[in-house]
Amino acid sequence: MDLYPKPVQKLIQSFSRLPGIGKKTAERLTLHLLHAKKNEAETLAKDLLELRKKIQLCSNCFALSENDKCTICSDQSRDATLICVVENPSDMNAIEKAHAFSGLYHVLGGALSPIDGIGPDELRIKELILRVKQNGIKEVIIATSTNVEGESTASYISEKLKNIKVTRIASGIPIGGDLKFVDQLTMQKAIRGRYGL
Amino acid sequence: MDLYPKPVQKLIQSFSRLPGIGKKTAERLTLHLLHAKKNEAETLAKDLLELRKKIQLCSNCFALSENDKCTICSDQSRDATLICVVENPSDMNAIEKAHAFSGLYHVLGGALSPIDGIGPDELRIKELILRVKQNGIKEVIIATSTNVEGESTASYISEKLKNIKVTRIASGIPIGGDLKFVDQLTMQKAIRGRYGL
Repeated sequence: MDLYPKPVQKLIQSFSRLPGIGKKTAERLTLHLLHAKKNEAETLAKDLLELRKKIQLCSNCFALSENDKCTICSDQSRDATLICVVENPSDMNAIEKAHAFSGLYHVLGGALSPIDGIGPDELRIKELILRVKQNGIKEVIIATSTNVEGESTASYISEKLKNIKVTRIASGIPIGGDLKFVDQLTMQKAIRGRYGL
Repeated sequence: MDLYPKPVQKLIQSFSRLPGIGKKTAERLTLHLLHAKKNEAETLAKDLLELRKKIQLCSNCFALSENDKCTICSDQSRDATLICVVENPSDMNAIEKAHAFSGLYHVLGGALSPIDGIGPDELRIKELILRVKQNGIKEVIIATSTNVEGESTASYISEKLKNIKVTRIASGIPIGGDLKFVDQLTMQKAIRGRYGL
């Protein structure tokens, strides 16, 4: 790596700091940008600088937003009595893509994970409880991940929201999934969660 | 993707324009930068902008350089009568890492590939011939790739440099390689290129 001039080395280092980008990929990206059309590196740099300046969190649901309220919270056609609780903005995006939910969201900012020092105070659980109390919410759907952290976050929240209907998204066999590749736990969930035809 | 605010979408797009970075990875990188330490995106942006401003090609060998002459061409301890011809700066880096070559380089800027419209005039072959004539070069080692393009580039150059010693880097079994996984062509090269013990 020492052979490359300083500015090249620096960009390689900056790229390899990103998650999932190793030294080799960082080198490939940097050399690509050196040979690419003139404005490709500049556009990337501009977009990077604008990202932090223009993005804030929605004051209602904590989704990524350009304004005080995100596009979903300001959409009057959505059902404001229904809240779907997710860990991160990317989960929210995955749900929106399915076009199966028309309520509002609440982004926790992660899941409970004592080992990483993430307790209830590090997540936006207080804000969720407040929202539920103040806005006449009828149902809270918990769509945290189905791993240990997500499940314990789900139980914690459901305990805190005793006076309201709290549901959890279903677990089971993915559509198109082959039964023989499904793990034991998922299969247990699929059988326990079976529904009448 | 439409769910994300504009600046987030724009950065995702800019990232996914890079080679080997798909939509999913671009999304992951962007969301990482949103949550990362404040200066990570800024540092990356700064390094991107400096790259184009500060990097030029060495006037002698066409390697990436901060100055008119690259560090290798300005290093008096290297053997200036020996030139190693490579396709790209990254190949040069791979050779330097091996610490087995102490001459100078010549970066062609690619390999002959008529199908992509790359003929001898698109590469720095004229410049190589001129360098060889003017500087009393004793040997030219051709270290282009061992694919069709690299091989035809090697033959083309060796024909143009008839009055001088032109060599080609050896092909054969990679060290630590298992013979049963070696392809036919490599095996042929390894057997033809065998040496006495």
